[in-house]
Amino acid sequence: MSEELLKKPASELRFNPVCKDWVVIATGRARRPETFAKEKKTIANTPAGECPFCHIETQEKPVLINEDEKGDWTLAVVPNKFPAFTPEGSLHKKTESLYVSINGVGFHEVVITRDHDLQINMPEFTVEKVKEVIDAYQERYLELMNEKMVNYVSIFHNHGLEAGASISHPHSQIIAIPVTDPDIRRSLDGSENFFKTHGKCIHCAMIKWDRQDGKRIIFENEKFIVLCPFASKVAFEVRIYPKKHHPYFERIKDDEKKQLAEALKIALNKIHKGLNDPPFNFFIHTSPCDGKDYDHYHWHLVILPKTSVWAGFELGTGIEISTIEPERAAEYLRNI
Amino acid sequence: MSEELLKKPASELRFNPVCKDWVVIATGRARRPETFAKEKKTIANTPAGECPFCHIETQEKPVLINEDEKGDWTLAVVPNKFPAFTPEGSLHKKTESLYVSINGVGFHEVVITRDHDLQINMPEFTVEKVKEVIDAYQERYLELMNEKMVNYVSIFHNHGLEAGASISHPHSQIIAIPVTDPDIRRSLDGSENFFKTHGKCIHCAMIKWDRQDGKRIIFENEKFIVLCPFASKVAFEVRIYPKKHHPYFERIKDDEKKQLAEALKIALNKIHKGLNDPPFNFFIHTSPCDGKDYDHYHWHLVILPKTSVWAGFELGTGIEISTIEPERAAEYLRNI
Repeated sequence: MSEELLKKPASELRFNPVCKDWVVIATGRARRPETFAKEKKTIANTPAGECPFCHIETQEKPVLINEDEKGDWTLAVVPNKFPAFTPEGSLHKKTESLYVSINGVGFHEVVITRDHDLQINMPEFTVEKVKEVIDAYQERYLELMNEKMVNYVSIFHNHGLEAGASISHPHSQIIAIPVTDPDIRRSLDGSENFFKTHGKCIHCAMIKWDRQDGKRIIFENEKFIVLCPFASKVAFEVRIYPKKHHPYFERIKDDEKKQLAEALKIALNKIHKGLNDPPFNFFIHTSPCDGKDYDHYHWHLVILPKTSVWAGFELGTGIEISTIEPERAAEYLRNI
Repeated sequence: MSEELLKKPASELRFNPVCKDWVVIATGRARRPETFAKEKKTIANTPAGECPFCHIETQEKPVLINEDEKGDWTLAVVPNKFPAFTPEGSLHKKTESLYVSINGVGFHEVVITRDHDLQINMPEFTVEKVKEVIDAYQERYLELMNEKMVNYVSIFHNHGLEAGASISHPHSQIIAIPVTDPDIRRSLDGSENFFKTHGKCIHCAMIKWDRQDGKRIIFENEKFIVLCPFASKVAFEVRIYPKKHHPYFERIKDDEKKQLAEALKIALNKIHKGLNDPPFNFFIHTSPCDGKDYDHYHWHLVILPKTSVWAGFELGTGIEISTIEPERAAEYLRNI
């Protein structure tokens, strides 16, 4: 067995036998209990000169790097130095009484844009630069989905400490994992059941109604629509859907990426301006890459501004409270 | 129609037709979009003299009030002044294309203990006082569950701004609602399926194993067990289970409440000391009160210290990452 294979996995995926949820437990890099008591979380607002993401040479070897004409890098994708998932270990199930776990086998990468101060939600972050980021998402997705143990690829971006960004230098993350959680599974099932019953995509049907109705739409170009969903989970939740039915993000074409870049830029700029640069998360919901057929699904991008905290009620019941109507939120963002 | 019935409900419950989730959209008291941009959230660390919860006379009329021998109040339950749910309106479904909503009909109460500075997790908050709080939970539960529109009662406590407590004066909340979210439903189903297949309660089976195994146990008394669950959703998640099979929290007996009070006090004190008074939420997971039979379920109390933020990966995949092994967390708390 090679040394590589003997490395300890970074984490363990544990299965909740009651609700069927997966959770990740850091094992390889778990923190000592005492450290939780001491620290007050602060974002590393490191000056550009000392920022680890500015100094790409301090990072793991890039798996993707873009350079400009002068040979300076503009975007890099590197393996995360503190990964939640690593390619080490087998997917063999460990069982202890009712408890099942598997190694946290997978990939964890960081997509870094060059400019330390240029956040993706700023007006100065051009459509071309957003497109460069989306190109990287797709390229890495296509690579990672082919890894045998990978069944789902999560692409996301955290902005601001309250949204979980511990380094202020703009970056997205890509995590490729062996399992699909019931949260995702539930949406896939809902979409599949609707397709079986009605012979059409539930997202297409909702988009059709929302366009006709108009009151939740923020922006649309030829290929994408930006809206506040009817059942928003947070105030000012924004979703971007391809207008045409598309189950698989990774099959997006170049002209579609340009239009997605425009839609994402406009959505993020409106949130930045209208809500005074709030922390936010965005992520892509797309079909699993587990070899099964998900032609009924419709990929989309979800933006969740961090305007409140999910407290005891939300955590205890799974019902989120949003303090503005999506229709008013959409009107407000539309008019910015 | 009386004036009471013409009052606008405080909110609307909206149904997500894809994933079948419910969300609450504030309508009656929705905020104006502009207000989201301006405010920076800060906890109202109002001095005791100006605190609205110290001045119980500024609150709605108490539905429950305890007094000591001198006639001073010690605990009060009052309707929330800014409720997420109100008893107004019908449960008639509104449908617009694929979108279904109902009025946010229900009850929202606040359980206030007298002392402004005495948080429930402090060593000075005695077992007797914790028991007084649990007594109030039960009494209000028994009252609210009999309301026709109420099918689920959520009892929870938020401590600290990062855990969603906007008023620092110690208080719990009780929200009684007409629906059960798929998140709860999933656990009920998991428990029911296990019961049907194995003829026993899945929680009883897990508790039996955990007691035998020992490594996740923090504390136990005669009737309750305190442990870090195998598939913890957050670092230092703690659960309190009645050792005997009990589907319904509201049927707890007096001697059991005493022991629950002791277990809860010890759990909260250990978290307070071991993690340096972190923000936290706790809530009770118990059977719905919708008239159906949930004899397969096993009620419990969940404590979630706020030691990290759920960011893009957690929100996008439903898989939470915990940076300490539950076994090490339990060992640490056990030894405090």
